[in-house]
Amino acid sequence: MSGVRRFTPQATGDYGWAGVERLRYKEEGAAPFRDITRQVLFAQPDQACELRYFEVAPGGYSTLERHRHTHAVLILRGRGTVRLGADEFPVEERDLVTVEPLTWHQFRADAESALGFLCLVSKERDRPQLPADGDEPR
Amino acid sequence: MSGVRRFTPQATGDYGWAGVERLRYKEEGAAPFRDITRQVLFAQPDQACELRYFEVAPGGYSTLERHRHTHAVLILRGRGTVRLGADEFPVEERDLVTVEPLTWHQFRADAESALGFLCLVSKERDRPQLPADGDEPR
Repeated sequence: MSGVRRFTPQATGDYGWAGVERLRYKEEGAAPFRDITRQVLFAQPDQACELRYFEVAPGGYSTLERHRHTHAVLILRGRGTVRLGADEFPVEERDLVTVEPLTWHQFRADAESALGFLCLVSKERDRPQLPADGDEPR
Repeated sequence: MSGVRRFTPQATGDYGWAGVERLRYKEEGAAPFRDITRQVLFAQPDQACELRYFEVAPGGYSTLERHRHTHAVLILRGRGTVRLGADEFPVEERDLVTVEPLTWHQFRADAESALGFLCLVSKERDRPQLPADGDEPR
């Protein structure tokens, strides 16, 4: 149904849109990460893509990973750091982050701030790769 | 290339990301609209979708139109009003607007505020329909 949903604080402290289910980021133990939730904002049957919102709690981080599919990420809330290959960049609201194929990437929230970001992906995409022990991502 | 782009005011007064071209919303005369620019944030060859950013200047508006494809819109900057069928809703930053198939819709900026929003679409989609003269959209 067509309509408007507000972005508001949830009882758990993170932000979300009413009526959009908050999901686990990944299965526990599947890969290293900390304090992150996932919402699928838009995954219509007629669309080949999904728009997701991830919120990383202060001090939390996403998995360090890479894959063949590209990422478009838009920071929606808070502050943190993104790792892209061998580089790190501070990020804040409305920054646009582009991740090219097979580039190692990781999002970290600042110690004092959550980091919320939108991520656009195709529904059909390759699975993320994790660094092997002793592998130096670049 | 992977990287981070900042959202900053442009010389023309609207906002944008460095290195992202600002385009005309539509060809002049193709349909009624006023004071609106378009940026394609992300349209990679491997992606079946595009993420676009539209910015409507104060007092401006998008075309009243409908189409079979769905829309996911996220308000990124400012304030305005969205028309969805026969209803109107005030919108502000981070509101999520869902537009179902064949629902008439239009975005208007407030008189005193720009309205900037992200819009996700599939690359392959049907062309918008415009209201016929005397047609009462609902």
